[in-house]
Amino acid sequence: MTVPDPRFSLNQWTTRHWPIPDLVSGCVARGVRGVGLWREPVAEYGLARTAKLMGDEGLTVTSLCRGGFFQEKDAIAENRRAIEEAAELGTPVLVLVSGGLPEGSRDIDAARARVAECLAELAPYAGSHNVQLAIEPLHPMYASDRCVVSTLGQALDLAAPHPPEQVGVVIDTYHLWWDTAAYDDIARAGAEDRLAVFQVADWVTPLPEGVLTGRGMLGDGCVELRRFREAVEATGYTGPIEVEIFNEELWAMPGPDALTLTLDRFAEHVV
Amino acid sequence: MTVPDPRFSLNQWTTRHWPIPDLVSGCVARGVRGVGLWREPVAEYGLARTAKLMGDEGLTVTSLCRGGFFQEKDAIAENRRAIEEAAELGTPVLVLVSGGLPEGSRDIDAARARVAECLAELAPYAGSHNVQLAIEPLHPMYASDRCVVSTLGQALDLAAPHPPEQVGVVIDTYHLWWDTAAYDDIARAGAEDRLAVFQVADWVTPLPEGVLTGRGMLGDGCVELRRFREAVEATGYTGPIEVEIFNEELWAMPGPDALTLTLDRFAEHVV
Repeated sequence: MTVPDPRFSLNQWTTRHWPIPDLVSGCVARGVRGVGLWREPVAEYGLARTAKLMGDEGLTVTSLCRGGFFQEKDAIAENRRAIEEAAELGTPVLVLVSGGLPEGSRDIDAARARVAECLAELAPYAGSHNVQLAIEPLHPMYASDRCVVSTLGQALDLAAPHPPEQVGVVIDTYHLWWDTAAYDDIARAGAEDRLAVFQVADWVTPLPEGVLTGRGMLGDGCVELRRFREAVEATGYTGPIEVEIFNEELWAMPGPDALTLTLDRFAEHVV
Repeated sequence: MTVPDPRFSLNQWTTRHWPIPDLVSGCVARGVRGVGLWREPVAEYGLARTAKLMGDEGLTVTSLCRGGFFQEKDAIAENRRAIEEAAELGTPVLVLVSGGLPEGSRDIDAARARVAECLAELAPYAGSHNVQLAIEPLHPMYASDRCVVSTLGQALDLAAPHPPEQVGVVIDTYHLWWDTAAYDDIARAGAEDRLAVFQVADWVTPLPEGVLTGRGMLGDGCVELRRFREAVEATGYTGPIEVEIFNEELWAMPGPDALTLTLDRFAEHVV
C-alpha cells in the first residue's frame, strides 16, 4: 500500500454514508491527511466534537461545504453560521454554492445580482474569521435550481471586488470541463490569487434523473483530469486536491473500499 | 380562433408522433404557415413526396434537422446528403448538431477542431445548394455525447471563416438561457449576419434521465422567452420562430391538441 499523494483530500460526500469517526479512522489508516467536510453530517456528529476529532487525529479540514443558496430567506444569517462553523473546524475555505432562481422567478439577472450583494455583506465577516468564501461555479444544468454561477469567468468577476483572502473560487473539473474558456480562466484565477480549492470528478453519461448523482469515478469519464491538474499547478497552486463524487454506486460501497478505489484512481488519472 | 403570428413555425419534433400528412393538414387548418422538418420522418414519408405536399399546401419548410455528428464515420458524405435533402425541400436552413466526443476519447479540443474542418469541407457545397448550415450550440450538458459546441460565442467563432450565406447559427432559448454572454452574443450574431433560425423552448426541472426529453412547454419554466425574442428582433431578424420541444407528455397528446396548446402558449409567452 503506497502512501497517498499529500495533496489528496477526501471530500466527505464521496463516501457519503461513512460515519465521521469511521471516516477519520479509515483516512488515518490509509495515510490520507485531508478531508473536506459538509455541514449537515458535522452538525449531526457535533461541531466541537468533529473539530476535536480532526485535531486529535492530525487531519486537515481542507474545506467546508457549503454556504450560499442566497435565494433563500435568512440566507445571510445562515451563511454567517456557516462561516463560524468553518472557523471552528479550522478550515480556511467555505465553499459557496450560490443557489438558483427564487421560486417562480424567471429573473436570472436579479438572482446573479443577489449573489454579488450577499458576497459584499458576507466577505468582511468571513475575513474576520480567517475564512475564505470560495465561489463554486456549477455546471449550467444546475443554473435554475442550484447555482446561477455557471462559469469560472463569472465566479472570478463576482470575486473581483473583494480581497482574495476573503473571496476566492473553487475549480471543479466536473462543472468546468466543457468550457472553452476553462484553461484561460484557471490561469486568470491564479493571476488574481483566487484559487481556494481544486476538486476533481469525472463526467459520465447518461445522466441520471435529477442530474445530481451522476458524477463519475476518476477515469470512468471523458474529463482530462491530468490536464486540469497541470493547469491548476501551473498557477502556483499547491493546495489540496479534493475528490468529490456524487454517485449512488460509490455510496453503496463500504467506506474503506470506496476510499481505496478513489486513491487508486487518483494515482492513475490525476497525479 | 385567432390567426397565429406569421413567424410561428412548428418544429416537427414538438409533435413527434404526428404523421406528416396529418401534421400538414393540422397546420393548414390552424393557419400555421411554417414547419421545421426532421430527416428521419421525411425519409420515411418520402423526400419528394414531402416536398410536393408542402408545396401543394403552401407550407414553408423553415429548417431541416439535422446535419452534423461529425465524430461519426462517413460524416461528410452523410452531411452532403442532408444538404441535398434540404435543397430538395426548399428550406434555406440545415441545422447542424456537431456531435460529441468520439467513443472513448477525452480530447474535446480535437473534437472541436474536427467541427471546424468539417465546416470548411461542407460550406461551399451548402452554398452551391442555396442552403445555409446553421450551427446549433447545445446546452453544455450535451457536450460529451451530442454536441461539443456549447455556447453561441463558440458557434459564431466557428462560423466566422465562412460567408454568412453558407454558415450561420441557431439561437435556441433552451440551450442558451443560462449563458451570461447570451444577449451580447445575439447582438453579435445579428451584426455578423449569422442568425439562421430562432427556436424556443422552456427550461424546467427536474431533468429526466438522459436529459433529452425534459424541455418545457412555453411558460412552464424559467426562461425569459419574450426577452430572447426581443433581443433577436433587435438584430433585425424577421425570420421564423420555431417551437421545438422534446417532451414525453407533449408527445403523448393528439397532434391537434399539442398544436393548440403550443399556439396558445406562444401567444402568451413569446410574442
